[in-house]
Amino acid sequence: MPFPRSIQNLIAQFSKLPGIGPKTAERLVFYLLKQDKSKLTDFGHTLLHVRDNVQICERCGQVAEDKLCTICNDKNREAGIICVVAEIADILALEKSGEFTGMYHVLNGTLNPTEGITPDRLNIKKLEERLAKGRVNEIILALNPTIEGETTAMYLTKLLKKYNVKITKLARGLPQGSDLEYADEVTLANAFKGRLQI
Amino acid sequence: MPFPRSIQNLIAQFSKLPGIGPKTAERLVFYLLKQDKSKLTDFGHTLLHVRDNVQICERCGQVAEDKLCTICNDKNREAGIICVVAEIADILALEKSGEFTGMYHVLNGTLNPTEGITPDRLNIKKLEERLAKGRVNEIILALNPTIEGETTAMYLTKLLKKYNVKITKLARGLPQGSDLEYADEVTLANAFKGRLQI
Repeated sequence: MPFPRSIQNLIAQFSKLPGIGPKTAERLVFYLLKQDKSKLTDFGHTLLHVRDNVQICERCGQVAEDKLCTICNDKNREAGIICVVAEIADILALEKSGEFTGMYHVLNGTLNPTEGITPDRLNIKKLEERLAKGRVNEIILALNPTIEGETTAMYLTKLLKKYNVKITKLARGLPQGSDLEYADEVTLANAFKGRLQI
Repeated sequence: MPFPRSIQNLIAQFSKLPGIGPKTAERLVFYLLKQDKSKLTDFGHTLLHVRDNVQICERCGQVAEDKLCTICNDKNREAGIICVVAEIADILALEKSGEFTGMYHVLNGTLNPTEGITPDRLNIKKLEERLAKGRVNEIILALNPTIEGETTAMYLTKLLKKYNVKITKLARGLPQGSDLEYADEVTLANAFKGRLQI
């Protein structure tokens, strides 16, 4: 390669990211090189700042800059409802809907025994600790409508029954803006089962 | 946004890169957060290392860690041929072909008067200085086969005539692995004009 080692290293760093191949990595690095040097400074410092300041919220498992995340620290949110998600990134999607004002709990994955993801690998113990305090009325299982998601939801439903808490899951049906003609049969079956009176 | 400021900043840094929208930026940041913290360290330090160590080769305009780039410093390369390219990234593509063993000169763009890119904005003066020394036999204009590329090639051909040097451009024709049926008419016309005896 006709470039200095430091540039080759930067291209290698970018290529390690998901969905970024060597060609895209080269393009990104040459874009950065064409910018003001302060861009490299900002980018580098932001990465190191995240490394130094980001931790996991000790209550819900989401990213935080303090012991508790911004949501767990927010007195205006309903403490009696916990929305259980598989990944931290799911919180972002759900928050964008603006519909939910309760708390979250991040499992860090879904059950998948063939890949070795058994219940003890998920962040379930802390969820039980939160329920044991008796101040939670409802658990919303906001897991993906996939085999792993459904399996995890079933497992949690059984496990959490003893806490005498209402357990719900997100509605299934037609996504907004979709076309009946192209909807798959499971989605349509769910749309029938969950039909709403007008 | 339900995430700490440092993470929002990192997402913003990634979204500024070309071809990376906010969704992809979020995905990249969550990928990094799931990795070992040393990944963030490496990435951050690599960016700062590039900022501190990369400069522009004072002879050809390519990136370098010393005053001269690795190619200008390489005694095994032919000093008598200069391949003129628009962007540093073009050097990478040309080097991969393994066909060229001469030197490069980076213009940092192509002529585009409507966007204010006039000859004085390009790295042309240094090219003339190199030619004025009289040790160059051939200039290969490796510019894109676009209006801007052709305009720049024409301008340089006129300008450099006085140095009494052979000026060539890269061959035009069918790209390897292409399909005659889908080739555009200009490519086919060029393929006819430049046909080779077998």
